[in-house]
Amino acid sequence: MKRKNNVSMAVVRRLPKYYRYLGDLLSKDISKISSSELSKLTGFTASQIRQDFNNFGGFGQQGYGYNVSELHSQLGKILGLNRVCNAVIVGAGNLGQAIGNYAGLEEAGLRLLTFFDKSPKMIGLKIGDIEIKDVSTLETFIKENNVKVGIITTPIASAQQVADRMIASGINGIWNFAEADLKVPEHVMVENVHLNESLFTLSYLVANNNNENK
Amino acid sequence: MKRKNNVSMAVVRRLPKYYRYLGDLLSKDISKISSSELSKLTGFTASQIRQDFNNFGGFGQQGYGYNVSELHSQLGKILGLNRVCNAVIVGAGNLGQAIGNYAGLEEAGLRLLTFFDKSPKMIGLKIGDIEIKDVSTLETFIKENNVKVGIITTPIASAQQVADRMIASGINGIWNFAEADLKVPEHVMVENVHLNESLFTLSYLVANNNNENK
Repeated sequence: MKRKNNVSMAVVRRLPKYYRYLGDLLSKDISKISSSELSKLTGFTASQIRQDFNNFGGFGQQGYGYNVSELHSQLGKILGLNRVCNAVIVGAGNLGQAIGNYAGLEEAGLRLLTFFDKSPKMIGLKIGDIEIKDVSTLETFIKENNVKVGIITTPIASAQQVADRMIASGINGIWNFAEADLKVPEHVMVENVHLNESLFTLSYLVANNNNENK
Repeated sequence: MKRKNNVSMAVVRRLPKYYRYLGDLLSKDISKISSSELSKLTGFTASQIRQDFNNFGGFGQQGYGYNVSELHSQLGKILGLNRVCNAVIVGAGNLGQAIGNYAGLEEAGLRLLTFFDKSPKMIGLKIGDIEIKDVSTLETFIKENNVKVGIITTPIASAQQVADRMIASGINGIWNFAEADLKVPEHVMVENVHLNESLFTLSYLVANNNNENK
């Protein structure tokens, strides 16, 4: 499979959606789909879809459509979902616990090894089968267990320091829920989920939509 | 304050970030800031920043920079944060509980009234001071309590139906955490937080970054 380098982030962000819709089709025993049918499902144009897949060497045959099962499996590999990667969560509060229980971690090939927190009230408590560890042992744990992905669900004030410590110990991917814009070296990939920015955007849309309708 | 209509979503999505950085400056007693200083903080170019603010009638005076307190307050109004709006959460599992405990709700002017769930095991349980209600009473509750924002943290299979019922009862803003692309009428605003798409994106970045570095 030939891949272009420098696939744009806009393309990358559409891949998980394709993967999800193809999974739905698979579960309905649909084996072939054209780019125009995929367009109706996803809301992207058929030409956009063909261009996106061309970044990774195609997959389709002109006039025959795509083989759903093969496309799903290839996209899964491109997304790296066929690998297993050790992960830890720092920040064992409500959000950290919710993320720890999130079934999507496993689907994305992440094996959650443990939670860390700095609060003496939290350390030693169990979330499911996992005991919350003292964050002072973070570096040792990451190195000894070959942890590659760190999930940050701390308050904003601790986030950069936690990221620095993760990276110094060998982590190269961060899923960041703290409302901070982390500064990291080039080899480290950060994906942010900034809930407040999302919520403020909703607030804007509701507020301004209402104004215009009055 | 003059506003342009049809402000692009790209601009709208930068507003919460400006608002957050201005709040940080305020808490440090910084009263003036230039667009180039704001550029260093946010990572957006100074010209981008000036253009963004021009969508809402400016705020700055050439050569004098921006008044931090005034800009923060104006952005808050534009984002609709000065209003209070009733909200409910449907889906009282881990994620729903985490979102219910999220301090950002109040900051965004949302007053969380209650949780709904369909599981008999969950109905009647308390999350903090709030008792989880039977989702069969959703419509009545929304109408009687003038609820305008609905937060969906259900599994994907229930999400569209829950959205339809919310909208039929008067809700016009949805914060959707289910991995579904909701179909809604034009007057309803949806803001999605698709955790699996974010996580798959991280997985792609880590997988492909590693390959290239080897």
